[in-house]
Amino acid sequence: MTNATKINSLDAFFNPQTIAVIGVSRDPHKVGSVILSNVLQNQMGIRIYPVNPRLNEVAGLKCYPSIIDIPEKVDLAVISLPAAFVLDAIKECIKRETKAAIIISAGFGETESGKELEIELKKTITQSKMRVIGPNTVGILLPGKLNTLFLPYNESTTPPAGNIAFATQSGAMGHLLLERMAFYGVGTSAFIPIGNKIDVDENDLMEYLARDAKTKCIACYLESFAQGKRFLEICHRISPKKPIVVLKAGSTTWGARAAASHTGALAGSNLVVEGALKQVGVTRAHTEEELWDFANVLAHGKVLQGNRIAIITPAGGMGVTAVDCIERSPNLEMAELSTSTREKIKAKIPPFASAANPIDLTATSTPEMIDGVLEDLQKDDNVDGILMFSIPQPPLPVTDEQIEIVVKWMRQGKPLVVGTIENRLTTEGIRKYAREGVPVFPSIERAVKALQVSAERGEYLRNRQEREK
Amino acid sequence: MTNATKINSLDAFFNPQTIAVIGVSRDPHKVGSVILSNVLQNQMGIRIYPVNPRLNEVAGLKCYPSIIDIPEKVDLAVISLPAAFVLDAIKECIKRETKAAIIISAGFGETESGKELEIELKKTITQSKMRVIGPNTVGILLPGKLNTLFLPYNESTTPPAGNIAFATQSGAMGHLLLERMAFYGVGTSAFIPIGNKIDVDENDLMEYLARDAKTKCIACYLESFAQGKRFLEICHRISPKKPIVVLKAGSTTWGARAAASHTGALAGSNLVVEGALKQVGVTRAHTEEELWDFANVLAHGKVLQGNRIAIITPAGGMGVTAVDCIERSPNLEMAELSTSTREKIKAKIPPFASAANPIDLTATSTPEMIDGVLEDLQKDDNVDGILMFSIPQPPLPVTDEQIEIVVKWMRQGKPLVVGTIENRLTTEGIRKYAREGVPVFPSIERAVKALQVSAERGEYLRNRQEREK
Repeated sequence: MTNATKINSLDAFFNPQTIAVIGVSRDPHKVGSVILSNVLQNQMGIRIYPVNPRLNEVAGLKCYPSIIDIPEKVDLAVISLPAAFVLDAIKECIKRETKAAIIISAGFGETESGKELEIELKKTITQSKMRVIGPNTVGILLPGKLNTLFLPYNESTTPPAGNIAFATQSGAMGHLLLERMAFYGVGTSAFIPIGNKIDVDENDLMEYLARDAKTKCIACYLESFAQGKRFLEICHRISPKKPIVVLKAGSTTWGARAAASHTGALAGSNLVVEGALKQVGVTRAHTEEELWDFANVLAHGKVLQGNRIAIITPAGGMGVTAVDCIERSPNLEMAELSTSTREKIKAKIPPFASAANPIDLTATSTPEMIDGVLEDLQKDDNVDGILMFSIPQPPLPVTDEQIEIVVKWMRQGKPLVVGTIENRLTTEGIRKYAREGVPVFPSIERAVKALQVSAERGEYLRNRQEREK
Repeated sequence: MTNATKINSLDAFFNPQTIAVIGVSRDPHKVGSVILSNVLQNQMGIRIYPVNPRLNEVAGLKCYPSIIDIPEKVDLAVISLPAAFVLDAIKECIKRETKAAIIISAGFGETESGKELEIELKKTITQSKMRVIGPNTVGILLPGKLNTLFLPYNESTTPPAGNIAFATQSGAMGHLLLERMAFYGVGTSAFIPIGNKIDVDENDLMEYLARDAKTKCIACYLESFAQGKRFLEICHRISPKKPIVVLKAGSTTWGARAAASHTGALAGSNLVVEGALKQVGVTRAHTEEELWDFANVLAHGKVLQGNRIAIITPAGGMGVTAVDCIERSPNLEMAELSTSTREKIKAKIPPFASAANPIDLTATSTPEMIDGVLEDLQKDDNVDGILMFSIPQPPLPVTDEQIEIVVKWMRQGKPLVVGTIENRLTTEGIRKYAREGVPVFPSIERAVKALQVSAERGEYLRNRQEREK
């Protein structure tokens, strides 16, 4: 297979017309049943074929003894049989010219007893044209399109369709982040847990997602690199167009040992991890929060063209703490507002409010004030980006009027992120901002780190353009 | 006043028998009305006297023209008049031998126009025996006892009574953290926003709270030190008995400038901040999340007697990421489990699970397994503390059975913290752990940092004991 054919062949995962669910059951709590029920929720007219030799019918659908017996060729098979039965099922899929399979089943290379089985499975797959995701994956999710997860989800509990693609080598980490995205209504274009990556790996996915119009940012949780050198080449090619955020777990010595025990894969060398990722324009995350936050700001926010930040806050304490975070950050600095900006702002805010940076509107902050200040900051050449704190002014929550003004300036103006402190009073506001595509962060430090990462990307893009002139 | 008398005099804030609410109104949304409604919720039989010369009656209570007209002496006056009227009200309070006052009103030293007013106010108060919190404070909260906040709260929305005391120089930061505590059901013994600290400052409060039996940990958000040297002396005296966590905002140059503009106070010198706090046993927080997390682990958790951590996880990816965090931390290290521990664990977990540290129970983790592993870890001398990841195993949430087991070992065993990833599926579990007094953290890094801080405190206490032998 040429590389282009190889990448095109992933279409069977992203746009299947026919799906076989192999390993269904009458018990609605079994893995196969959950998958069938999720797959059936699609609105795309995909034809679904359940497979189980002991059943004639399930969920109102005719059930087939084997994929061989299905009356048409199938694009995608989703397999959740016990490990020992997977190889035979895969052989049948190949025989029936199935284009792609997702192997949910665990008990392969990630366990001592399954290593041999995985080697055999890999050999069989490599000799075929069929593409395989897994084994040991929780299934994939393409919101609004296809859900093959073995997690109990429905349209209302998965994240909406959006522009962050998420490839993960840990199903649990992926699942927990997916839930967080769902909670705030932040969308994903594709959620792909790659499991033991016996065939489809992060490299194939990156190339496919690079061409996917819906994906504006690629986030990866990896414990090992399938081929480190190829990964770097691909990232180098993609990164000018699409931001890539990588959490490479197992990057300390003990961590690498733990990763090897978890996925059975050898963790990438520290050399690759520490220096090379940065060189090829990858944004590095060290924790699951950073992975989510950095993808969020890079997918939704404009890239900072400089390091000078203006802060708007209705609470002095948040402003002061944010200034400390900015001053401690490796690249950001506080913007020195021009005299004319300060004077224009002064005319719009109460006398006891502060027109210097951080601009402290105090608890008397109004949407009009925020609108006026945001307008003034656009015209000040000393300001590269804006950190806007948005918190309720009891007894009122953050008003829709305020949110609309911030959304307006985020869209038409300089890079802007919203910061808050997550709690009962602020959750709804966070959701509203997120739904409007505003990068919003639930703590002061996380908002500042998002700006830091945006400025880093801005610098990378400028340097790269310079080099490649 | 001697220092002891000065500290004892704070009793009027913590145990008033009579309260005057000065500046009430018929409009239920006005500050004075919110305060009156909050004060009336107390179950302590406190006698309440509303004051407003233009009203005869409010909320079913007789309203007095002035504090002078109230038929008995009052322990505590809560004043929410416009700034210009505060001095006269204070003079009347002093005349009537009121023991203490909380001045909610803003418009004093934190503004240009109010600086003079604050100087006069301070002079008047200093010459009297009356103690004053404020001005420019949101009021204080003693859960289950007294609520003088001007924020719309009731018994069900405030945090429960607990053992973290919280003094804050920023009302908004305090309020946002209070909401977070309320959301998770983490309790507070006293929430005291000190505002412009014209009289009662962090030093007085620290001394009072040091003797308060309900307070197990003191958390402070400060932008300036009233008297840096005294603060250090007090912390040095208290810290062996009670942990103290301080977020000193305005500790960078620009931050100090912002703090001065916010509270009108000169920020403490960096020298004091950077080195001295550590020397006197204060745990330093740099963000609002750290302030909350560190207070949480030090109030509830046992102090680590060494740096070697064992991890239990039902998700390999969380384990690997946590190992990286531990390896990157300045003081923690992964525990090398003894051969006998590993063998005992191996006998209890499935063959594909990992008995090495991190102990990966995989998605097949059961409460019995967790119980057995926690028991084995107690007996291994190579383990100083335990990081237990607790996440739902879909379709089930974290079960009560699992929570009970963890609570049992947290109480009777080695220091233990629970880590998770905060989302829709985990929130209820976080709340349950928090209600049982388990230090629980909503991200991997935050759980690791909590252990780091606990180990730092353990080392401080050991060194201090050594020095003072």
